[in-house]
Amino acid sequence: MKKLADIGMIGLAVMGENLARNIESKGFTVAVFNRELERVDEFTAQYGDGNFIAAYSLEELVANLAKPRKVFMMIKAGSPVDETIDRLLPLLEKGDIIIDGGNSHFPDTIRRTAYVESKGLLYIGTGVSGGEEGALLGPSMMPGGSPDAWPHVKPIFQAICAVADGSPCCDWVGENGAGHFVKMVHNGIEYGDIQLICEAYHIMRDYLGLTDDEMHEVFESWRSSDLSSYLIDITADILAYKDEDGEPLVEKILDAAGQKGTGKWTAVAALDEGVPLTLIGEAVFARCLSAQKEERVEASKILGSEITRFVGTDEEKKAFINSISRALLASKVVSYAQGYMLMRAAAESYGWHLNYGGIALMWRGGCIIRSVFLGRIYDAYKADPELTNLLTTPYFRELMAGLIPDWRRVVGACVAAGLPTPAFSSALAYYDGYRCPRLPANLLQAQRDYFGAHTYERVDAPRGEFFHTNWTGRGGTTSAGTYNA
Amino acid sequence: MKKLADIGMIGLAVMGENLARNIESKGFTVAVFNRELERVDEFTAQYGDGNFIAAYSLEELVANLAKPRKVFMMIKAGSPVDETIDRLLPLLEKGDIIIDGGNSHFPDTIRRTAYVESKGLLYIGTGVSGGEEGALLGPSMMPGGSPDAWPHVKPIFQAICAVADGSPCCDWVGENGAGHFVKMVHNGIEYGDIQLICEAYHIMRDYLGLTDDEMHEVFESWRSSDLSSYLIDITADILAYKDEDGEPLVEKILDAAGQKGTGKWTAVAALDEGVPLTLIGEAVFARCLSAQKEERVEASKILGSEITRFVGTDEEKKAFINSISRALLASKVVSYAQGYMLMRAAAESYGWHLNYGGIALMWRGGCIIRSVFLGRIYDAYKADPELTNLLTTPYFRELMAGLIPDWRRVVGACVAAGLPTPAFSSALAYYDGYRCPRLPANLLQAQRDYFGAHTYERVDAPRGEFFHTNWTGRGGTTSAGTYNA
Repeated sequence: MKKLADIGMIGLAVMGENLARNIESKGFTVAVFNRELERVDEFTAQYGDGNFIAAYSLEELVANLAKPRKVFMMIKAGSPVDETIDRLLPLLEKGDIIIDGGNSHFPDTIRRTAYVESKGLLYIGTGVSGGEEGALLGPSMMPGGSPDAWPHVKPIFQAICAVADGSPCCDWVGENGAGHFVKMVHNGIEYGDIQLICEAYHIMRDYLGLTDDEMHEVFESWRSSDLSSYLIDITADILAYKDEDGEPLVEKILDAAGQKGTGKWTAVAALDEGVPLTLIGEAVFARCLSAQKEERVEASKILGSEITRFVGTDEEKKAFINSISRALLASKVVSYAQGYMLMRAAAESYGWHLNYGGIALMWRGGCIIRSVFLGRIYDAYKADPELTNLLTTPYFRELMAGLIPDWRRVVGACVAAGLPTPAFSSALAYYDGYRCPRLPANLLQAQRDYFGAHTYERVDAPRGEFFHTNWTGRGGTTSAGTYNA
Repeated sequence: MKKLADIGMIGLAVMGENLARNIESKGFTVAVFNRELERVDEFTAQYGDGNFIAAYSLEELVANLAKPRKVFMMIKAGSPVDETIDRLLPLLEKGDIIIDGGNSHFPDTIRRTAYVESKGLLYIGTGVSGGEEGALLGPSMMPGGSPDAWPHVKPIFQAICAVADGSPCCDWVGENGAGHFVKMVHNGIEYGDIQLICEAYHIMRDYLGLTDDEMHEVFESWRSSDLSSYLIDITADILAYKDEDGEPLVEKILDAAGQKGTGKWTAVAALDEGVPLTLIGEAVFARCLSAQKEERVEASKILGSEITRFVGTDEEKKAFINSISRALLASKVVSYAQGYMLMRAAAESYGWHLNYGGIALMWRGGCIIRSVFLGRIYDAYKADPELTNLLTTPYFRELMAGLIPDWRRVVGACVAAGLPTPAFSSALAYYDGYRCPRLPANLLQAQRDYFGAHTYERVDAPRGEFFHTNWTGRGGTTSAGTYNA
């Protein structure tokens, strides 16, 4: 009797290829299928000696799966996922599980979970982070969807995922779209982390005038600091990498960033939830601005591109580099505090029961934002699972108190020098706003009441009691109907 | 024979009420209807001596209109608009015109224009700005939709709208959703202008320690400067307004901002178009942060709320106030430059032929953001209708060159003092980024290629040619399939 596969993989591009290899390497049998059939042949020619079963149609794939069948789609997000679900449904039966491991938008996963469940099947939308290498050697995985599906896929997912501090970087996130939501926030935070590192590099390159070898040494030294993380590691590697002519390759790369939209989704989700996710917002916009390469070059000719260089001794320069590392860490704390606020708000909106400490553990290894730092976040949520904001916890409060003078110093120097640090700056403005008991929004409310009769609350009256003033003595006394501002 | 009305107004809340009165005051006959019929009675009891025709049903309203019938909906945006359209369609005939003057989201107006046109009728979605007073005395109006409808409504719209420098603040904007899009951007810019004024007030109040009377004097003096605008005017009024006990009312207003979502729409549209609309984004998030009043108060107790006060002579303080006005103007230039970039990008995406100078003229009077400043924008687009960015025009380039030292001084002082200026700061970071020919996004692209095989372009190769490096010597050589970052 033919051996049946433990799971079927649809899509053998680099991520699907490496996930299938990873699963097989843990002793599972994997049926593999790809829309372009020659890719199936390529795959089996390269890896086929192990426990792989080649399938040349969805029917063949499904026929080779043990029950309850588990079909893992690693395909392009969007309509291909819907189409594949619709092609799979007639081939599957009650209790079978369809898994989407792509970067699907969480509202789609909410919709698809309900749809697949309405057919009597189970659905999982799982974030998979770690890039191609992570997929092969141990990704971070963030599954959500039908809770009944979790026990069936848990042995596979927790076998292949990364392990950090002895814990698997994969656990159940929550109902329907929760897994893809958390993966989306992960990607948004990744945009923020990357932008922060880029700003640190920019300051060292164009304000301090360091060479790439010198910057490599700086990032090497940060590997063993509180900044220790995968992105710091690869930045150190990148700065040391030489092109064929022996010059640093990174300086030959065009400064026009690409993006695939998950950072944008995070910013939109924050706007929808009313959560001030300023740092990630600036990081997304910074990519947009970088992409306007030709326009910037033209503008620099008209507006000038001067940056006033740092003046100081080698010792002072070294101290400033240290200040940059501290500004980077402080900004990073703000970014994660904002990201966690967004998850809290969304959990409330969508009825998810998120385990915030567990999410930090899932991100602790395997994924692009993995870092020692996430262990501190895990600790904070372990101490208080109902935490309002990371910034006010004892550990982070004390950490920030020590970082703030350097943070102000770096941002202030860049403001004076003409070097843009949108993420450092917006993080600092957020921090100062968050600890400000009285923002100037009282004037804002007065203005809205003046021109639109939008009413306001008073400091000396209970919340929820609204007042309107006829500021001019003209106009009506009616409160605003359709004028929205 | 009974006189027929020139236009029918549906919705008699404050905006509909005042628009109807405005139209009637220009010699037109207006049929009026409201879902709550007692409002119709109230209205006619108060204003009924003129050329108003009371209608107690949509049928009655339509029966009282001259052909082609023009029905103006001033009702709550969203499903009520769709429902009213569906109730009107069977009552109207080919060539009749349905007008939506509410704050509808432009994709809805795109959809509704196509829908109403498919029934043989014409549709207009028009932005109306100016609040309740503007609606009565002369709003700014931004109509888009079915081009064939414009000649029929033009005489009414241009009779009731504001006039600035001899030109009506209403002209045809463009096809389908163009009018509501431009109104949305107007509102986003309004969010930005308001936030900038609030930051200037915040600096004067909590860094310089000025009284409300002193700040009133400052805003009074700005009335005759380059900052001259409606929002500066009303801020001066507000700061002088005393509560019953003789104290400034504005200081008794709670600093928790409300919003109705049009600023958010603008930020989302910018994210969709890939346009770095950083200032408005920060302004929207600043409202979100202000709304977390209790959380901020708690955080201030834990993190401290110190702001280092300004130290200096009265003369130095006066000079700093002058610097604030210049920082405010510089930030405002950036905000408008960003808003115009967004309109350009959307015009390309949606196939609109926007008249950018004409838009500046429409905003020049009547609306909340009306200002002398908009005349300068009109001039810039008159000189070059295909302008890429306001910042690089001779007038604004020279203006900015003079403002920049003060701008850096104010932002730098606030960074050091601990006073949040998210909009001032993000505008400066954008300006420095826009004039930066080489941003650090080369490192970002290297990182994306390192962890996700996303490829990069090179400075020494033509645009559109993509390279991938196997940075580690491990991993595949396949470029990224499904991993998106």
